[in-house]
Amino acid sequence: MANNEEEMVVTPWEVSGKVDYERLIKEFGTQPLTDALIKRIEKVAGYQHLQLRRKIFFSHRDLDVLLDLYDKGEKFVLYTGRGPSSHTHLGHIMSWIFTKYLQDAFKVKLYFQLTDDEKFLHIRDLTLDDARDYAYDNALDVIAMGFQQGKTKLIVDTKNIALLYELALRVAKLTTFSTARAVFGFKEESNIGIIFYTAVQSAPCFLESVITGKKVPCLIPAGIDQDPHWRVARDAATRLGYYKPAQMHCKFMPSLQQSGKMSASIPETAIYLTDTPKEAKKKIMNAFTGGRPTIAEQRKFGGNPDICPVHQYFYFLFEEDDKKMEELNSTCRRGEILCGECKELLAERVGKFLLNHQRKRKQARNVLQKYLLK
Amino acid sequence: MANNEEEMVVTPWEVSGKVDYERLIKEFGTQPLTDALIKRIEKVAGYQHLQLRRKIFFSHRDLDVLLDLYDKGEKFVLYTGRGPSSHTHLGHIMSWIFTKYLQDAFKVKLYFQLTDDEKFLHIRDLTLDDARDYAYDNALDVIAMGFQQGKTKLIVDTKNIALLYELALRVAKLTTFSTARAVFGFKEESNIGIIFYTAVQSAPCFLESVITGKKVPCLIPAGIDQDPHWRVARDAATRLGYYKPAQMHCKFMPSLQQSGKMSASIPETAIYLTDTPKEAKKKIMNAFTGGRPTIAEQRKFGGNPDICPVHQYFYFLFEEDDKKMEELNSTCRRGEILCGECKELLAERVGKFLLNHQRKRKQARNVLQKYLLK
Repeated sequence: MANNEEEMVVTPWEVSGKVDYERLIKEFGTQPLTDALIKRIEKVAGYQHLQLRRKIFFSHRDLDVLLDLYDKGEKFVLYTGRGPSSHTHLGHIMSWIFTKYLQDAFKVKLYFQLTDDEKFLHIRDLTLDDARDYAYDNALDVIAMGFQQGKTKLIVDTKNIALLYELALRVAKLTTFSTARAVFGFKEESNIGIIFYTAVQSAPCFLESVITGKKVPCLIPAGIDQDPHWRVARDAATRLGYYKPAQMHCKFMPSLQQSGKMSASIPETAIYLTDTPKEAKKKIMNAFTGGRPTIAEQRKFGGNPDICPVHQYFYFLFEEDDKKMEELNSTCRRGEILCGECKELLAERVGKFLLNHQRKRKQARNVLQKYLLK
Repeated sequence: MANNEEEMVVTPWEVSGKVDYERLIKEFGTQPLTDALIKRIEKVAGYQHLQLRRKIFFSHRDLDVLLDLYDKGEKFVLYTGRGPSSHTHLGHIMSWIFTKYLQDAFKVKLYFQLTDDEKFLHIRDLTLDDARDYAYDNALDVIAMGFQQGKTKLIVDTKNIALLYELALRVAKLTTFSTARAVFGFKEESNIGIIFYTAVQSAPCFLESVITGKKVPCLIPAGIDQDPHWRVARDAATRLGYYKPAQMHCKFMPSLQQSGKMSASIPETAIYLTDTPKEAKKKIMNAFTGGRPTIAEQRKFGGNPDICPVHQYFYFLFEEDDKKMEELNSTCRRGEILCGECKELLAERVGKFLLNHQRKRKQARNVLQKYLLK
């Protein structure tokens, strides 16, 4: 809990402190995701996704503009991605699950960018080979999500740079150091690669327009920590003759150990999609909770699910039934369930999920080549 | 002559004022090209090139180290290049002619980089398509120089970025913004592309090492204005496990109109390899000279060849005979030749050169593909 008191930091390369999502909307200058907008998506999809209903996706830019274009018959493309510095963990896939919902609903193409260059540039001890290995490893998790083959193109930056570089150059030419520093907080000791890199992350926003030769709108579902990159992209978009990329921003999956985001660099805070159910269970059983120090106190005063990562895991991913979620909350508050019991329940669901995912992950190897952007 | 008094500026993107080459050696921290080093090259080549004899190549870094390695049996690669923002002019080919001398002498591979990305990033109104068109146009001039097919690989940055990007990332990760700003003088309004770009220009220094999987020395003959890029490359080299690229620096071909370097952006200052002999003659006849305002004064006081671009053209490229060069100088000083006569003589030689070059340039189209790096 120590970090709860720390100053909130949300950048593409660091999320720490207690994250105040209302404040982020104000500070980043984004728009709250309104019920009206959620209804418009629901209308197309046929149902309201859990992550909309629970406002896990809570903020946007230009989603209204994008949906207006869609209503007029302009198909958009989806774009999201992952910085491959480790195996994939549960925090990463939240927005992927939602992205799949959008792909299925709108029947659109998805560009999924694996930014091995970024992670190499950002992490001192990560080699480029390791970053690329993780890119292909993470790609299996992406495919296992069930994204439509043929409609889903995985980009590995160092492998597809020939296609991205021209767009990156066009964005870079329009982006001053002064702007980039203001957006990302670069320092004197920042390397010149990471300063340029944002242009590479901007490129997929406009890739479909380049490939098809006409202006194609783009919607990016992603964690709000990535917003700074697309602020740069949006600045460049109009001057390049493209639509500004629309965005939908989601919250961060909490760490099992402390507040903030799950961190791939601290293994105990995260459950990897490559963990065995046993390993996952061990992490869950060791997790921080909102429970009391003793069973007696828990029975007497009840726990606090609001600060409990175990409850958050149910809420974000593993209990889709709102009624059951509410029941779990109130039994906790009333002291009718102990943390150990709650953890057992979560471990069981996570274990099932992992086994199922790992089966699909294995199959993904056979189709990997078909998903990779040529 | 106005600019003679102006402050000397020598960067990869600007050369102005009167260039003081002795001062550049001190400020850049390079080494003067000694007679002993010239002799070592002569010994291999069988003759001393004009540009060595006249100290047009006047400075170096680690040429001694490179020649020591060569003597021990380690073959090096040559690397030079061109920023394609216009047609090629006579100022560009000076170092190419010398590079061919080195290629023939040492029987080594040459990487020739056409930096369309750089020029696009640097020049506000230049499109990427135009920069690339110039790259392929300039490539014809390179091939027309007679570089050995099979031993010469032309790199067009945006086309070969897949091969360059990884090396560029490795260099970029080791180069802080602080260092890059100190070396290049970047400003707040510098775009993030040009800040990164130096890493792309560093990449070919190490390309042969990557391709062959062993440490291969590299020698870069180029204008001294490009030295800052390879200072960055040299800083990174040791940490990446490669040899520091050795360099040989040449002086700038003077403008026909004023002091400083021929400038492709001011057509009157330069003779393009695509100019007709007639166009070239017109530029030469309009050139600034070291002559007197009237014929009578010229006859009486003589001219000053030291400040005369027409004389410099003979000296740099069009009068290889030292004795005849000295005669031309002294007849000028004694007032025995008028500027018009001198110009006629130069125009004739330039015209012949252009016709011959343009014939070879035409043939170059047929073999362009064989020279391009795949």
